[in-house]
Amino acid sequence: MPEILPALTDRRARRSFDPRPVPRDVQETLWRAVSVAPSHGNAQPVRLLVAESPQAREALIAGLSDGNRGWAAASPLLVAIAAMPAHDAAMEGSDGSRRELWAFHAGIAAGNLMAQATALGLIAHPMAGFDEPAVRAAFSAPTDLRILTPVAIGYPGPVSALPEDLQRRETSAQERIPLDILVVTDRWTDDHGVSARELRKRTQG
Amino acid sequence: MPEILPALTDRRARRSFDPRPVPRDVQETLWRAVSVAPSHGNAQPVRLLVAESPQAREALIAGLSDGNRGWAAASPLLVAIAAMPAHDAAMEGSDGSRRELWAFHAGIAAGNLMAQATALGLIAHPMAGFDEPAVRAAFSAPTDLRILTPVAIGYPGPVSALPEDLQRRETSAQERIPLDILVVTDRWTDDHGVSARELRKRTQG
Repeated sequence: MPEILPALTDRRARRSFDPRPVPRDVQETLWRAVSVAPSHGNAQPVRLLVAESPQAREALIAGLSDGNRGWAAASPLLVAIAAMPAHDAAMEGSDGSRRELWAFHAGIAAGNLMAQATALGLIAHPMAGFDEPAVRAAFSAPTDLRILTPVAIGYPGPVSALPEDLQRRETSAQERIPLDILVVTDRWTDDHGVSARELRKRTQG
Repeated sequence: MPEILPALTDRRARRSFDPRPVPRDVQETLWRAVSVAPSHGNAQPVRLLVAESPQAREALIAGLSDGNRGWAAASPLLVAIAAMPAHDAAMEGSDGSRRELWAFHAGIAAGNLMAQATALGLIAHPMAGFDEPAVRAAFSAPTDLRILTPVAIGYPGPVSALPEDLQRRETSAQERIPLDILVVTDRWTDDHGVSARELRKRTQG
Protein backbone atom coordinates (compact mmCIF):
# COMPACT_ATOMS: atom_id res chain seq x y z
CA MET A 1 0.00 0.00 0.00
CA PRO A 2 1.54 3.34 -0.98
CA GLU A 3 2.21 6.09 1.55
CA ILE A 4 -0.72 8.46 1.61
CA LEU A 5 0.42 11.08 4.11
CA PRO A 6 1.57 13.26 1.17
CA ALA A 7 -1.99 13.28 -0.20
CA LEU A 8 -3.26 14.38 3.20
CA THR A 9 -0.48 16.87 3.90
CA ASP A 10 -0.35 18.38 0.41
CA ARG A 11 -4.04 19.11 0.49
CA ARG A 12 -4.30 22.87 0.74
CA ALA A 13 -7.32 25.09 0.35
CA ARG A 14 -6.03 26.75 -2.81
CA ARG A 15 -8.05 29.24 -4.80
CA SER A 16 -6.40 29.55 -8.22
CA PHE A 17 -7.87 27.18 -10.80
CA ASP A 18 -6.82 26.17 -14.28
CA PRO A 19 -9.88 26.40 -16.56
CA ARG A 20 -9.47 22.91 -18.04
CA PRO A 21 -12.39 20.65 -17.11
CA VAL A 22 -12.16 17.67 -14.77
CA PRO A 23 -12.63 14.61 -17.04
CA ARG A 24 -15.61 12.33 -16.41
CA ASP A 25 -13.51 9.36 -15.33
CA VAL A 26 -11.61 11.51 -12.85
CA GLN A 27 -14.91 12.80 -11.46
CA GLU A 28 -16.10 9.24 -11.06
CA THR A 29 -12.98 8.34 -9.08
CA LEU A 30 -13.82 11.22 -6.72
CA TRP A 31 -17.42 10.03 -6.31
CA ARG A 32 -16.16 6.50 -5.60
CA ALA A 33 -13.93 7.84 -2.83
CA VAL A 34 -17.04 9.42 -1.29
CA SER A 35 -19.05 6.25 -1.84
CA VAL A 36 -16.69 4.01 0.15
CA ALA A 37 -16.70 6.30 3.22
CA PRO A 38 -17.97 4.30 6.20
CA SER A 39 -21.08 5.09 8.25
CA HIS A 40 -22.52 3.47 11.36
CA GLY A 41 -24.97 0.74 10.38
CA ASN A 42 -24.01 1.49 6.77
CA ALA A 43 -26.62 4.27 6.88
CA GLN A 44 -24.91 6.18 4.03
CA PRO A 45 -26.66 9.49 4.73
CA VAL A 46 -24.36 11.44 2.40
CA ARG A 47 -25.38 12.81 -0.99
CA LEU A 48 -23.15 14.63 -3.43
CA LEU A 49 -24.73 17.52 -5.33
CA VAL A 50 -22.99 18.27 -8.64
CA ALA A 51 -23.75 21.55 -10.42
CA GLU A 52 -23.38 20.72 -14.10
CA SER A 53 -25.97 22.87 -15.88
CA PRO A 54 -25.25 26.61 -16.17
CA GLN A 55 -28.44 27.25 -14.13
CA ALA A 56 -27.50 25.01 -11.21
CA ARG A 57 -23.96 26.35 -11.27
CA GLU A 58 -25.09 29.95 -11.25
CA ALA A 59 -27.54 29.32 -8.43
CA LEU A 60 -24.89 27.55 -6.36
CA ILE A 61 -22.41 30.38 -6.90
CA ALA A 62 -25.07 32.91 -5.89
CA GLY A 63 -25.46 31.00 -2.60
CA LEU A 64 -21.78 31.38 -1.66
CA SER A 65 -20.55 34.08 0.69
CA ASP A 66 -19.05 37.23 -0.84
CA GLY A 67 -15.59 36.06 0.17
CA ASN A 68 -15.92 32.78 -1.71
CA ARG A 69 -17.96 33.77 -4.74
CA GLY A 70 -15.14 35.35 -6.75
CA TRP A 71 -12.48 32.69 -6.72
CA ALA A 72 -14.88 29.72 -6.53
CA ALA A 73 -16.74 30.81 -9.66
CA ALA A 74 -13.51 30.21 -11.59
CA SER A 75 -13.37 26.52 -10.62
CA PRO A 76 -14.46 24.14 -13.38
CA LEU A 77 -16.33 21.78 -11.05
CA LEU A 78 -18.63 22.85 -8.23
CA VAL A 79 -20.25 20.33 -5.93
CA ALA A 80 -21.80 20.30 -2.46
CA ILE A 81 -21.59 17.64 0.21
CA ALA A 82 -24.97 17.05 1.83
CA ALA A 83 -26.59 14.56 4.19
CA MET A 84 -30.02 13.25 5.16
CA PRO A 85 -30.18 13.32 8.99
CA ALA A 86 -33.37 11.20 8.88
CA HIS A 87 -31.38 8.35 7.30
CA ASP A 88 -28.89 8.29 10.14
CA ALA A 89 -28.78 7.29 13.79
CA ALA A 90 -28.84 9.48 16.89
CA MET A 91 -27.34 7.98 20.06
CA GLU A 92 -28.22 8.87 23.61
CA GLY A 93 -25.72 9.11 26.48
CA SER A 94 -26.33 7.98 30.05
CA ASP A 95 -26.63 11.68 30.94
CA GLY A 96 -29.45 12.15 28.41
CA SER A 97 -27.16 13.91 25.90
CA ARG A 98 -27.88 13.37 22.23
CA ARG A 99 -25.31 12.57 19.60
CA GLU A 100 -26.33 12.75 15.94
CA LEU A 101 -24.05 11.06 13.45
CA TRP A 102 -24.91 12.63 10.06
CA ALA A 103 -22.51 15.60 10.17
CA PHE A 104 -19.66 13.36 11.37
CA HIS A 105 -20.39 10.87 8.58
CA ALA A 106 -20.46 13.68 6.03
CA GLY A 107 -17.07 14.81 7.33
CA ILE A 108 -15.55 11.38 6.71
CA ALA A 109 -16.91 11.49 3.15
CA ALA A 110 -15.50 15.00 2.68
CA GLY A 111 -12.11 13.82 3.96
CA ASN A 112 -12.13 11.01 1.41
CA LEU A 113 -13.07 13.42 -1.37
CA MET A 114 -10.24 15.83 -0.51
CA ALA A 115 -7.62 13.09 -0.12
CA GLN A 116 -8.61 11.50 -3.42
CA ALA A 117 -8.65 14.88 -5.18
CA THR A 118 -5.18 15.75 -3.89
CA ALA A 119 -3.85 12.36 -5.00
CA LEU A 120 -5.19 13.11 -8.50
CA GLY A 121 -3.44 16.49 -8.59
CA LEU A 122 -6.67 18.40 -8.03
CA ILE A 123 -7.65 21.17 -5.65
CA ALA A 124 -10.81 20.43 -3.65
CA HIS A 125 -11.54 23.51 -1.57
CA PRO A 126 -14.47 23.22 0.88
CA MET A 127 -16.31 26.38 1.89
CA ALA A 128 -18.06 27.06 5.17
CA GLY A 129 -19.26 30.46 3.98
CA PHE A 130 -22.54 29.89 2.12
CA ASP A 131 -26.28 30.25 2.62
CA GLU A 132 -27.71 26.79 3.20
CA PRO A 133 -31.25 27.49 1.92
CA ALA A 134 -29.83 29.06 -1.25
CA VAL A 135 -27.49 26.14 -2.03
CA ARG A 136 -30.28 23.68 -1.27
CA ALA A 137 -32.60 25.54 -3.63
CA ALA A 138 -29.95 25.49 -6.38
CA PHE A 139 -30.58 21.73 -6.60
CA SER A 140 -34.33 21.88 -5.77
CA ALA A 141 -33.53 19.71 -2.75
CA PRO A 142 -35.98 19.27 0.15
CA THR A 143 -35.44 20.97 3.49
CA ASP A 144 -34.65 17.66 5.19
CA LEU A 145 -31.39 17.56 3.23
CA ARG A 146 -28.67 19.40 5.13
CA ILE A 147 -25.85 21.02 3.14
CA LEU A 148 -22.49 20.61 4.86
CA THR A 149 -20.16 22.31 2.41
CA PRO A 150 -19.87 23.38 -1.21
CA VAL A 151 -16.52 22.30 -2.68
CA ALA A 152 -14.70 23.99 -5.56
CA ILE A 153 -12.73 21.41 -7.57
CA GLY A 154 -10.23 21.77 -10.39
CA TYR A 155 -6.61 21.64 -11.44
CA PRO A 156 -4.36 24.31 -9.90
CA GLY A 157 -3.78 27.53 -11.82
CA PRO A 158 -1.13 30.23 -11.46
CA VAL A 159 -1.13 32.01 -8.11
CA SER A 160 -0.43 35.26 -9.96
CA ALA A 161 -3.95 35.14 -11.40
CA LEU A 162 -5.44 35.82 -7.95
CA PRO A 163 -6.02 39.20 -6.28
CA GLU A 164 -3.05 40.20 -4.10
CA ASP A 165 -4.64 39.41 -0.71
CA LEU A 166 -5.57 35.91 -1.87
CA GLN A 167 -2.07 35.38 -3.32
CA ARG A 168 -0.62 35.74 0.18
CA ARG A 169 -3.07 33.21 1.62
CA GLU A 170 -2.34 30.82 -1.25
CA THR A 171 1.33 30.56 -0.35
CA SER A 172 1.24 30.84 3.44
CA ALA A 173 2.53 27.91 5.52
CA GLN A 174 0.13 25.36 6.99
CA GLU A 175 -0.21 26.13 10.71
CA ARG A 176 -1.24 23.43 13.13
CA ILE A 177 -1.44 23.17 16.92
CA PRO A 178 1.42 21.07 18.37
CA LEU A 179 0.88 17.30 18.59
CA ASP A 180 1.05 17.42 22.40
CA ILE A 181 -2.05 19.61 22.43
CA LEU A 182 -3.85 17.63 19.74
CA VAL A 183 -3.09 14.28 21.38
CA VAL A 184 -4.34 13.66 24.92
CA THR A 185 -2.61 10.67 26.50
CA ASP A 186 -4.65 9.10 29.31
CA ARG A 187 -5.61 12.34 31.02
CA TRP A 188 -7.02 15.67 29.88
CA THR A 189 -5.23 18.79 31.12
CA ASP A 190 -6.16 22.47 30.79
CA ASP A 191 -3.52 22.82 28.05
CA HIS A 192 -5.56 20.54 25.79
CA GLY A 193 -8.50 22.90 26.09
CA VAL A 194 -6.66 25.89 24.64
CA SER A 195 -8.09 26.80 21.24
CA ALA A 196 -6.00 27.18 18.08
CA ARG A 197 -7.16 30.79 17.94
CA GLU A 198 -5.87 31.44 21.47
CA LEU A 199 -2.55 29.75 20.63
CA ARG A 200 -2.15 31.98 17.57
CA LYS A 201 -2.75 35.05 19.70
CA ARG A 202 -0.10 33.95 22.20
CA THR A 203 2.46 33.32 19.47
CA GLN A 204 1.79 36.67 17.82
CA GLY A 205 1.45 38.65 21.08
CA MET B 1 1.23 11.26 -6.26
CA PRO B 2 0.29 7.60 -5.76
CA GLU B 3 -3.25 6.32 -6.22
CA ILE B 4 -5.04 6.35 -2.88
CA LEU B 5 -8.41 4.86 -3.79
CA PRO B 6 -7.13 1.45 -2.59
CA ALA B 7 -6.48 2.91 0.88
CA LEU B 8 -10.03 4.26 0.94
CA THR B 9 -11.66 1.18 -0.58
CA ASP B 10 -9.68 -1.41 1.38
CA ARG B 11 -10.63 0.22 4.64
CA ARG B 12 -13.02 -2.18 6.30
CA ALA B 13 -14.37 -2.17 9.82
CA ARG B 14 -12.62 -5.39 10.78
CA ARG B 15 -12.69 -6.85 14.28
CA SER B 16 -9.88 -9.40 14.50
CA PHE B 17 -6.62 -7.95 15.79
CA ASP B 18 -3.09 -9.26 16.00
CA PRO B 19 -1.77 -8.61 19.53
CA ARG B 20 1.48 -6.97 18.40
CA PRO B 21 1.64 -3.31 19.43
CA VAL B 22 1.49 -0.37 17.04
CA PRO B 23 5.01 1.14 17.11
CA ARG B 24 5.42 4.74 18.32
CA ASP B 25 6.55 6.08 14.96
CA VAL B 26 3.54 4.47 13.26
CA GLN B 27 1.26 6.03 15.88
CA GLU B 28 2.81 9.40 15.21
CA THR B 29 2.13 9.06 11.48
CA LEU B 30 -1.53 8.47 12.36
CA TRP B 31 -1.64 11.54 14.60
CA ARG B 32 -0.04 13.62 11.83
CA ALA B 33 -2.75 12.51 9.42
CA VAL B 34 -5.31 13.81 11.94
CA SER B 35 -3.30 16.98 12.49
CA VAL B 36 -3.34 18.04 8.82
CA ALA B 37 -7.12 17.69 8.49
CA PRO B 38 -8.56 21.05 7.45
CA SER B 39 -11.07 23.11 9.42
CA HIS B 40 -12.85 26.36 8.62
CA GLY B 41 -10.80 29.31 9.89
CA ASN B 42 -8.19 26.74 10.93
CA ALA B 43 -10.20 26.31 14.16
CA GLN B 44 -8.77 22.80 14.74
CA PRO B 45 -11.47 21.75 17.23
CA VAL B 46 -10.41 18.09 17.15
CA ARG B 47 -8.58 16.31 19.96
CA LEU B 48 -7.36 12.73 19.93
CA LEU B 49 -7.68 10.82 23.19
CA VAL B 50 -5.20 7.93 23.49
CA ALA B 51 -5.74 5.31 26.20
CA GLU B 52 -2.24 4.18 27.10
CA SER B 53 -2.37 3.41 30.82
CA PRO B 54 -4.19 0.24 31.92
CA GLN B 55 -6.61 2.43 33.91
CA ALA B 56 -7.58 4.70 30.99
CA ARG B 57 -7.82 1.69 28.69
CA GLU B 58 -10.07 -0.22 31.07
CA ALA B 59 -12.30 2.80 31.63
CA LEU B 60 -12.61 3.39 27.87
CA ILE B 61 -13.48 -0.27 27.26
CA ALA B 62 -16.10 -0.11 30.03
CA GLY B 63 -17.72 2.81 28.20
CA LEU B 64 -18.20 0.82 24.97
CA SER B 65 -21.50 -0.85 24.10
CA ASP B 66 -21.88 -4.56 24.82
CA GLY B 67 -21.60 -5.31 21.11
CA ASN B 68 -18.23 -3.55 20.81
CA ARG B 69 -16.60 -4.33 24.15
CA GLY B 70 -15.54 -7.89 23.38
CA TRP B 71 -13.68 -7.52 20.10
CA ALA B 72 -12.45 -3.96 20.75
CA ALA B 73 -10.76 -4.96 24.02
CA ALA B 74 -8.44 -7.18 21.96
CA SER B 75 -7.09 -4.25 19.93
CA PRO B 76 -3.64 -3.07 20.99
CA LEU B 77 -4.41 0.63 20.55
CA LEU B 78 -7.60 2.36 21.65
CA VAL B 79 -8.23 6.02 20.97
CA ALA B 80 -11.22 8.35 20.76
CA ILE B 81 -11.83 11.21 18.37
CA ALA B 82 -13.25 14.23 20.18
CA ALA B 83 -13.94 17.90 19.49
CA MET B 84 -14.41 21.19 21.31
CA PRO B 85 -17.56 22.81 19.87
CA ALA B 86 -16.67 26.09 21.61
CA HIS B 87 -13.51 26.31 19.50
CA ASP B 88 -15.44 26.11 16.27
CA ALA B 89 -17.80 28.25 14.24
CA ALA B 90 -21.57 28.01 13.89
CA MET B 91 -23.09 29.51 10.74
CA GLU B 92 -26.60 30.84 10.30
CA GLY B 93 -28.72 30.42 7.17
CA SER B 94 -31.05 33.04 5.70
CA ASP B 95 -33.94 30.96 7.09
CA GLY B 96 -32.53 31.19 10.63
CA SER B 97 -31.22 27.62 10.57
CA ARG B 98 -28.02 26.89 12.46
CA ARG B 99 -25.10 24.90 11.16
CA GLU B 100 -22.37 23.86 13.59
CA LEU B 101 -19.08 22.72 12.10
CA TRP B 102 -17.35 20.72 14.84
CA ALA B 103 -18.83 17.27 14.09
CA PHE B 104 -18.16 17.73 10.38
CA HIS B 105 -14.58 18.76 11.10
CA ALA B 106 -14.12 15.75 13.39
CA GLY B 107 -15.39 13.54 10.57
CA ILE B 108 -12.72 14.86 8.20
CA ALA B 109 -10.08 14.08 10.82
CA ALA B 110 -11.53 10.59 11.33
CA GLY B 111 -11.45 10.02 7.56
CA ASN B 112 -7.78 10.98 7.49
CA LEU B 113 -7.03 8.66 10.40
CA MET B 114 -8.73 5.70 8.76
CA ALA B 115 -7.15 6.29 5.34
CA GLN B 116 -3.70 6.63 6.88
CA ALA B 117 -4.20 3.53 9.03
CA THR B 118 -5.31 1.47 6.04
CA ALA B 119 -2.30 2.65 4.04
CA LEU B 120 -0.08 1.44 6.90
CA GLY B 121 -1.70 -1.99 6.90
CA LEU B 122 -3.67 -1.27 10.06
CA ILE B 123 -7.31 -1.71 11.01
CA ALA B 124 -8.91 1.45 12.42
CA HIS B 125 -12.46 0.57 13.40
CA PRO B 126 -14.64 3.46 14.62
CA MET B 127 -17.51 2.67 16.99
CA ALA B 128 -20.79 4.56 17.32
CA GLY B 129 -21.93 2.35 20.18
CA PHE B 130 -20.52 3.85 23.39
CA ASP B 131 -21.61 5.95 26.34
CA GLU B 132 -20.30 9.47 25.82
CA PRO B 133 -20.10 10.47 29.53
CA ALA B 134 -18.25 7.24 30.35
CA VAL B 135 -15.66 7.65 27.59
CA ARG B 136 -15.22 11.31 28.50
CA ALA B 137 -14.67 10.35 32.14
CA ALA B 138 -12.07 7.74 31.13
CA PHE B 139 -9.82 10.68 30.19
CA SER B 140 -11.05 13.06 32.93
CA ALA B 141 -12.15 15.37 30.13
CA PRO B 142 -14.57 18.27 30.70
CA THR B 143 -18.20 18.14 29.55
CA ASP B 144 -17.55 20.74 26.85
CA LEU B 145 -15.49 18.12 25.01
CA ARG B 146 -17.73 16.04 22.75
CA ILE B 147 -16.70 12.47 21.98
CA LEU B 148 -17.41 11.53 18.37
CA THR B 149 -16.10 7.98 18.22
CA PRO B 150 -13.75 5.57 19.93
CA VAL B 151 -11.51 3.82 17.39
CA ALA B 152 -9.91 0.39 17.83
CA ILE B 153 -6.56 0.27 16.01
CA GLY B 154 -4.14 -2.58 15.33
CA TYR B 155 -2.76 -5.00 12.78
CA PRO B 156 -5.24 -7.54 11.41
CA GLY B 157 -5.46 -10.95 13.07
CA PRO B 158 -6.98 -14.23 11.87
CA VAL B 159 -10.71 -14.11 11.20
CA SER B 160 -11.00 -17.58 12.74
CA ALA B 161 -10.20 -16.08 16.15
CA LEU B 162 -13.59 -14.30 16.18
CA PRO B 163 -16.96 -15.67 17.32
CA GLU B 164 -18.92 -17.17 14.42
CA ASP B 165 -21.41 -14.30 13.97
CA LEU B 166 -18.57 -11.77 13.77
CA GLN B 167 -16.65 -14.00 11.33
CA ARG B 168 -19.51 -13.65 8.84
CA ARG B 169 -19.53 -9.85 9.18
CA GLU B 170 -15.75 -9.76 8.80
CA THR B 171 -15.83 -11.29 5.36
CA SER B 172 -19.08 -9.88 3.93
CA ALA B 173 -18.91 -7.68 0.83
CA GLN B 174 -18.93 -3.89 1.12
CA GLU B 175 -22.44 -2.73 0.16
CA ARG B 176 -22.99 0.76 -1.14
CA ILE B 177 -25.94 2.61 -2.68
CA PRO B 178 -25.54 3.07 -6.46
CA LEU B 179 -23.62 6.13 -7.65
CA ASP B 180 -26.74 7.52 -9.36
CA ILE B 181 -28.42 7.75 -5.96
CA LEU B 182 -25.33 9.09 -4.17
CA VAL B 183 -24.65 11.70 -6.86
CA VAL B 184 -27.32 14.30 -7.60
CA THR B 185 -26.66 16.08 -10.89
CA ASP B 186 -28.28 19.52 -11.07
CA ARG B 187 -31.66 18.47 -9.68
CA TRP B 188 -32.83 16.45 -6.69
CA THR B 189 -35.40 13.72 -7.38
CA ASP B 190 -37.38 11.51 -4.99
CA ASP B 191 -35.01 8.63 -5.81
CA HIS B 192 -32.13 10.49 -4.14
CA GLY B 193 -34.11 10.63 -0.92
CA VAL B 194 -34.41 6.85 -0.58
CA SER B 195 -32.36 5.63 2.37
CA ALA B 196 -29.76 2.86 2.17
CA ARG B 197 -31.88 0.90 4.64
CA GLU B 198 -34.94 1.15 2.38
CA LEU B 199 -32.87 0.11 -0.64
CA ARG B 200 -31.60 -2.95 1.23
CA LYS B 201 -35.18 -3.92 2.07
CA ARG B 202 -36.23 -3.61 -1.58
CA THR B 203 -33.33 -5.77 -2.75
CA GLN B 204 -34.01 -8.43 -0.17
CA GLY B 205 -37.81 -8.24 -0.43
